[in-house]
Amino acid sequence: MAQLIPYLSVDCVVFGFDAERQELNILVYEREIFNDRSGNLNLKFPGSIVPMEDDLDDSAQKVLFELTGLKNVCLKQFHAFGNPDRIKFDEEKKWAERHYGVKIDRVVTIAYYALIRIDKHNPEQSRIRDKLKWITHDRAENMAFDHSLILEYALAALKKDVLLKDVNVFELLPPKFTLAQLQSLYEAVMGKKMDKRNFRKKISKASYIKALDEKQRGVAHKPALLFYFDKDDFERSKEDINTFFV
Amino acid sequence: MAQLIPYLSVDCVVFGFDAERQELNILVYEREIFNDRSGNLNLKFPGSIVPMEDDLDDSAQKVLFELTGLKNVCLKQFHAFGNPDRIKFDEEKKWAERHYGVKIDRVVTIAYYALIRIDKHNPEQSRIRDKLKWITHDRAENMAFDHSLILEYALAALKKDVLLKDVNVFELLPPKFTLAQLQSLYEAVMGKKMDKRNFRKKISKASYIKALDEKQRGVAHKPALLFYFDKDDFERSKEDINTFFV
Repeated sequence: MAQLIPYLSVDCVVFGFDAERQELNILVYEREIFNDRSGNLNLKFPGSIVPMEDDLDDSAQKVLFELTGLKNVCLKQFHAFGNPDRIKFDEEKKWAERHYGVKIDRVVTIAYYALIRIDKHNPEQSRIRDKLKWITHDRAENMAFDHSLILEYALAALKKDVLLKDVNVFELLPPKFTLAQLQSLYEAVMGKKMDKRNFRKKISKASYIKALDEKQRGVAHKPALLFYFDKDDFERSKEDINTFFV
Repeated sequence: MAQLIPYLSVDCVVFGFDAERQELNILVYEREIFNDRSGNLNLKFPGSIVPMEDDLDDSAQKVLFELTGLKNVCLKQFHAFGNPDRIKFDEEKKWAERHYGVKIDRVVTIAYYALIRIDKHNPEQSRIRDKLKWITHDRAENMAFDHSLILEYALAALKKDVLLKDVNVFELLPPKFTLAQLQSLYEAVMGKKMDKRNFRKKISKASYIKALDEKQRGVAHKPALLFYFDKDDFERSKEDINTFFV
């Protein structure tokens, strides 16, 4: 039977920060559709069709847990993707049909993002743990369906939420971090490089980034001073936002 | 036949500013479902089910034009509403079924907002022009379906976009406006009152709000100085945003 109305799905973009390599990462899983395994066409975000009886947000939490083992993560809905041609290839339609057992011509997807600590992620409970992997965000071009576009929107939403302190981006960092790590995170989220001295000058005004009386250990280079994030001060600093638009 | 997957719709929250009364307004239309015409249960936003072949954004533009006569408006998608019980009453299900000619148990809606100048709105081309009306945003409780919740989210999205200068909220004002009008608009969008002196002090720093050499005419009270909005200066002022998160 021909499809009469669009299916609805949820997709989750999970951001992590590789503190050692100082790189923003994204959690994806690998389908086996295309033979060319060098590209990204087999890579997609965790997601699923929404059943008739499920709430959207619940559905996103459920599929995230099933596919990645992540539980009780703060998922922020950021955009619905509804281009009728977002399933680009016949191979993808066939994959979706095998996967769901129904004929699928069109799916509108509601996308969510989440921030997690990579080192805390335990994929033990994932049904597809062998297919999961973290990739760097600058190498996520040409993914399955329109997922590279979804990633662009996720980054834009993250950036907005960070600017408005609607999200705690410091959750991505380890409890003790260096200013170099903080700067890499900043640059990845804001999508631009920043002069080191300038960055440190600005950071010195952020009351919620505090120096510890402690340095890195076991590094080959000169050990850097460690910092921590003060959540209470961060909450207080939010009051300055939401006041004006000049 | 029972519904197997959720229907998908688009809804548009159109904001206007009544410069004379200094009130933020929302464009709604009146269905005839409930007998009690004193409440808001018959009031809904312009919206429609998305056909199988239509892009979401195109669909929103199309329905907005058909129902309100508004064309080429900048519609910003802000949230998808997917609570399975968002159609609250049996009467509403029956209305939807009569309206669309199919059995409808559940609809997930993708919501958009737009800003327009009320005095420029010409509903001539609307199919339902007699049913359209502007209501003040503080009187929009208990609307049809979950539309009062949608309005709350629309206001939150508008506020975020205004803070980040992602939207030009000054489009809502007439070309020449008083600071009292600007303050009313500010207070409605930000959801809080502000001391007049404080407000004027802040506004004096906004390079893109400029005084004219002209006062109000034909008013009973002491005529106020008129101001205008300088779009070029506004665009330049955006550069200060997007730089930091302290």
